[in-house]
Amino acid sequence: MPASWFTLRWEGGALHLLDQRRLPLVETEVACRTARQVVEAIQEMVVRGAPAIGVSAAYGVALSALAHAPLSGSGEDLARRMSDDVRALRLARPTAVNLAWAVDRCERTLAAEAASPASLAAAALVREAVAIHDEDVAACRAIGRHGAGIVPQRATILTHCNAGGLATAGYGTALGVVRGAVEAGREVNVIADETRPFLQGARLTAWELQKDGIPVTLIADVAAASLLRRGDVDLVVVGADRIAANGDTANKIGTYPLALAAREHGVPFYVAAPLSTVDMTLANGSMIPIEERGADEILQLFGTRVAPEGVGVRNPAFDVTPAAMIAGIVTEVGILRPPLEVSLRDAFRGVASRS
Amino acid sequence: MPASWFTLRWEGGALHLLDQRRLPLVETEVACRTARQVVEAIQEMVVRGAPAIGVSAAYGVALSALAHAPLSGSGEDLARRMSDDVRALRLARPTAVNLAWAVDRCERTLAAEAASPASLAAAALVREAVAIHDEDVAACRAIGRHGAGIVPQRATILTHCNAGGLATAGYGTALGVVRGAVEAGREVNVIADETRPFLQGARLTAWELQKDGIPVTLIADVAAASLLRRGDVDLVVVGADRIAANGDTANKIGTYPLALAAREHGVPFYVAAPLSTVDMTLANGSMIPIEERGADEILQLFGTRVAPEGVGVRNPAFDVTPAAMIAGIVTEVGILRPPLEVSLRDAFRGVASRS
Repeated sequence: MPASWFTLRWEGGALHLLDQRRLPLVETEVACRTARQVVEAIQEMVVRGAPAIGVSAAYGVALSALAHAPLSGSGEDLARRMSDDVRALRLARPTAVNLAWAVDRCERTLAAEAASPASLAAAALVREAVAIHDEDVAACRAIGRHGAGIVPQRATILTHCNAGGLATAGYGTALGVVRGAVEAGREVNVIADETRPFLQGARLTAWELQKDGIPVTLIADVAAASLLRRGDVDLVVVGADRIAANGDTANKIGTYPLALAAREHGVPFYVAAPLSTVDMTLANGSMIPIEERGADEILQLFGTRVAPEGVGVRNPAFDVTPAAMIAGIVTEVGILRPPLEVSLRDAFRGVASRS
Repeated sequence: MPASWFTLRWEGGALHLLDQRRLPLVETEVACRTARQVVEAIQEMVVRGAPAIGVSAAYGVALSALAHAPLSGSGEDLARRMSDDVRALRLARPTAVNLAWAVDRCERTLAAEAASPASLAAAALVREAVAIHDEDVAACRAIGRHGAGIVPQRATILTHCNAGGLATAGYGTALGVVRGAVEAGREVNVIADETRPFLQGARLTAWELQKDGIPVTLIADVAAASLLRRGDVDLVVVGADRIAANGDTANKIGTYPLALAAREHGVPFYVAAPLSTVDMTLANGSMIPIEERGADEILQLFGTRVAPEGVGVRNPAFDVTPAAMIAGIVTEVGILRPPLEVSLRDAFRGVASRS
């Protein structure tokens, strides 16, 4: 994890978040001291990226526990008092499954402490959040190690949105593959889609790669197909917000048309994500809820209105790329290859058998 | 042509252009009194859109003629004095062929007046520019009449960039089809791609459709594939900057990935353009020069820097959609159907036989 910047850190009983809305112009942090502040930070995209909001939500549960423990008797009593906070954290955003996954884990910890004094239950929840945080870093580093294997010695990698250190606890999934490849001695150039409407590619991916000294070229999203056609891209690697049991992958809006163009031009298209992003309860991608965000993301840019008053807007924040278009999913347990339905099932069996 | 706004008009010996860089926030005009001012206006995109820059260039030639005629003897002498201006107009932007087409027409007029007094030659050039202007309006209206035939009674039409009244002398090509359909009694909704990086969809298409009372919904370019997949779009209609003899079509960057998504979901993809946009001297789209525009279009939005200093940028302004992905080209002489190589050749034979 780079020393010069952080996505989130737990310090002094508060969750400190790098305010991603203000990057790259201003590097400032937001301190969340209550669960509700974490909910708000997730909704307003102070922190974003499926793994990062999972880790943040876990700290949000811990903050709720610390706030309610002094008034609670047992862990069971604490759980009752925390239930509104926990629900708000779980529902803060709908598409990324890591949020529900992290909250579920915290709830299991809480349930296991039902008979303990509330203060011990709260301490267990802080430990659980720290564990989820540490595991995220470890998973991303493992994704990087496995991912290096798909990167040629000299490679141009195209990515969409920010599946980087800023989308995780600091190393990244898609950009974890990039970092893993660089650490393995590959010569890597990254082409970053700017990623309208929120410009995560321009504001975040370009920023963090530049911080780490990795060459990055920025393009409008609509230019990706032309570069793929010209043979300027060796592989596409993106992150994921939720992967269904058959491998269909929800990710930032624009991922699906990128996959179409990659397939058209024979460029391999990879997804990089920890297994916590996989939702084995959904048979396929049509069941993944797609968040629709506000019209102002389209109508305004940095406070300047770009379209006339009164026009309609549609602003789906994610799309679903069919499993058949994915060359592999780079996870912390290795690269899952098609048929993804089978390799995902096997990966979860393997995790279950180890734990 | 709508009464409430204009793209360009010739008045008082000057070319008046609606300043499209400032729409939709400010409606103001730029008056060009010299050919060099027209060159600058085209390069800085005060006026843009293949047909509109063709008409503007013709007026630019007329302005050059009016400036040089008092010092010239014959038309031939005038032509010599105008040659720098004419070259600059022809080269103002590289991709749209209408520019060269219009300048060529003016040069033929000038050549025919070689033996005339310079003042008469200049008058002929003003008449030629007005004729090109009038023909553009007539061609767009004819495109609208023919295009109405491809629009169902209730239709949602998706378009990219602005191939509207603002891209022509006032009625539009792709939006000419929309206007033609509305005039024919169809119930039309338009979905407009915002069209990064210059945001012609948000700033121009949404503005002019709203001026004309046609319902418009704005989306990020990257959302188009999702809407096509959901079945929310009946047909895609775009303009063109240059069409090769085989039907390959250069248009605003982002047109090609839109065509890929339309094909994937069985939604017909049409191009609307006057025959002046066809370059029969190029066998196919690989020969069309693609303009690369400046990095600041990507790095800045309304003066706010959106990416960190020092990142690379690639900013191709156009892409090429293969003829095979095009259901038809709506022209002023009718809808040309595949095989486009044949129907384009026949259309030009027809034009030649009528003229």
